Amino acid sequence: MTTTEEIAFLGPLYTYSHAAAKQYQDTLAVPTTLRPAKSIEECFQLLDSGEVKLAVVPFENSTNGSVVWTLDFLRQRLLGDDYFYSATAELLVPVSHCFFSNVSDKKDITKIYSHPQVWGQCVEFLKQYPNVERIDVASTAKAAELAANEPNAGAISSEMAGAAAGIKLVETNIADKKNNTTRFLGLSSLDDVQNPPPTKDDLSLISFTTTHNNPGALCAVLEEFRKHDIDLSSINSRPSLQDSWHYIFFVECRAHVSEERMKNTLKAMESICSSLTVIGSFPRCPGRDA
Amino acid sequence: MTTTEEIAFLGPLYTYSHAAAKQYQDTLAVPTTLRPAKSIEECFQLLDSGEVKLAVVPFENSTNGSVVWTLDFLRQRLLGDDYFYSATAELLVPVSHCFFSNVSDKKDITKIYSHPQVWGQCVEFLKQYPNVERIDVASTAKAAELAANEPNAGAISSEMAGAAAGIKLVETNIADKKNNTTRFLGLSSLDDVQNPPPTKDDLSLISFTTTHNNPGALCAVLEEFRKHDIDLSSINSRPSLQDSWHYIFFVECRAHVSEERMKNTLKAMESICSSLTVIGSFPRCPGRDA
Repeated sequence: MTTTEEIAFLGPLYTYSHAAAKQYQDTLAVPTTLRPAKSIEECFQLLDSGEVKLAVVPFENSTNGSVVWTLDFLRQRLLGDDYFYSATAELLVPVSHCFFSNVSDKKDITKIYSHPQVWGQCVEFLKQYPNVERIDVASTAKAAELAANEPNAGAISSEMAGAAAGIKLVETNIADKKNNTTRFLGLSSLDDVQNPPPTKDDLSLISFTTTHNNPGALCAVLEEFRKHDIDLSSINSRPSLQDSWHYIFFVECRAHVSEERMKNTLKAMESICSSLTVIGSFPRCPGRDA
Repeated sequence: MTTTEEIAFLGPLYTYSHAAAKQYQDTLAVPTTLRPAKSIEECFQLLDSGEVKLAVVPFENSTNGSVVWTLDFLRQRLLGDDYFYSATAELLVPVSHCFFSNVSDKKDITKIYSHPQVWGQCVEFLKQYPNVERIDVASTAKAAELAANEPNAGAISSEMAGAAAGIKLVETNIADKKNNTTRFLGLSSLDDVQNPPPTKDDLSLISFTTTHNNPGALCAVLEEFRKHDIDLSSINSRPSLQDSWHYIFFVECRAHVSEERMKNTLKAMESICSSLTVIGSFPRCPGRDA
C-alpha cells in the first residue's frame, strides 16, 4: 500500500507559498498532495503533531529580509525538546506583484488590500495613492478576493491570485525591485528525505546559542567556518528569550553536513556553543545569483 | 541668545518613545524641548532637513528583537550620500504592558487595540481572549485612547498612556517576559554632542557592506574585532537592496571609537569592506544586564 504524503503550506491557494509548495513537490520522490494551512505557525504545528511529514515555510525575501516569524517558530522548537524535522530544500519563488481593481477610474479607489509584507516592496507604486487606506489581510490571494467583491477597492497580489479571483488586472510588476524573490524552506520529518546527498553546491542551515557571559564567542564560532574554508551566505540573530540581550543565531553556509570540513567545524563549535543544531543540508536552489 | 534644541520622537505623548526621549533630554547639556513625530520615518526626515538636530528612535526590544524599520531608514541614509548625524546615546525603557477596558465583564470585550509589536509580547495573556479581534493601531497611546471611547473594547498600553486616556486599569504587567525592555538610540547632528567622550564602558555602532563576490568577508571583518580584543554585543543584517542576497551589516561592539584598538580595527576593515560607517560611540546604558 502506498501512502501519499501531505505538504503543508501557508494557504490559501494561489499564493507565492502555494507556488513554493508545488516546487517542493517536484523535488520529492515520494507521492504528495498539497495541504493549505491557516498560518506559518499551523505549518509547524502540523509537523509537530505528526499530522504531516512535509511543509514549506517562507524564510527570506530579497527586499524585506528574513521572515522573523519562521525564525521564531524554529527557535521555539530548537530551544525546546521537540525539534525533530529537517530543512531539506531551498525553493526560490519570483515575486511579481500586480495591481488589480474593478474600478474604472483610479480616482475612485478608496482602499487597497494586501499582505503586510507587500507595502514595503511597492513604495514607489503606492505614491500615486497617497490618501488611500491600506488594509492588511492574511494573504495576497485574500486581498484579490476581497477587492473583487467590493466597490472602490484595489488589491496588490500575484497574477495567479488575481486571475483566480476574477478581478481586472490594472498593472503588472509594480514592486520597487524588479527581481524581488522569496526563499522558502522545505521541511521534512520523513526518514528518506532528511539531508539529501551532496551535490557540490549545497547549503547548510545551522542554529546555535553561545553562553551569555562570553561575547567573544560569536567571533570564535565564525572563525571556525573561516578556518575550515566554508563561506557563510547569511547570518541572522533573534532574541533567545532565555535572557535579555541573549541571542540565537542562524547561519547558512556553503557546504554539506557530510563533508569533512563541515564535520570539523561542527566539532569545534560544540566546545564554544551552548546549543547547536544542524537544521539541514540541501542543494542550493538553481537560478540563484552568485 | 540661547536656542532651545528640539528632540523628535515617535509620538504621540505617553508612549515608551516619549519616556526614551525624556531620558535622552536628561543626558544632554543643551536646553531641549520634545517634539512628537508621526512616524519613525518622520524622525529621520526632520533630521535630514535640519529642522531638528536631535531625535530618539527605537532600536531593539529584548523580546521582539531589532526594529527593522529603524535599521532600514539608517540603511537608506548610510548607502546614500546624506548621512551626517551620529548615534550619541543608548536609552533603555522598561516596557510594562497593562490591560485597560471600561467594560465591566470581560466576556463583553469584542476587540482589543494595540501596537503591532505588542501581540507577540503578550501571547499568554491573550489566550483568555481567543476569539477577540485584535486591531493594530499606530501606538499604544492611541490604543488606550480608542478603547476609552468605545463600548466593548480593550487596549494593551503603558500605565502612563492608560492614565492619560482615562480608561480603567484591569491588569498590570501582562507581558510574557516580565523584564521586557526596549533600547532606543539618541541621534544628533549637533557638533558638541557627537561621540561623547569614552567612559570605559562604551558601545560603538558600526555599519558595513562587503563586496558581493566575497562571502568570506564577513568572517574576515569579525575576526578583526576578535584580533583587537573587542567584544561584539549584537549583529544584524538587512538586505542592502544593491543586489539580491547582498546585505548591510550592523554590529555593536564594546569599545569607543577614540580607542587605539577600535582605530586599528576600523583601519583593517577599510580594506575588506565596500562601505563602512561608524554610526556612533556612546556610553553603555546603566542598568543594562551583563
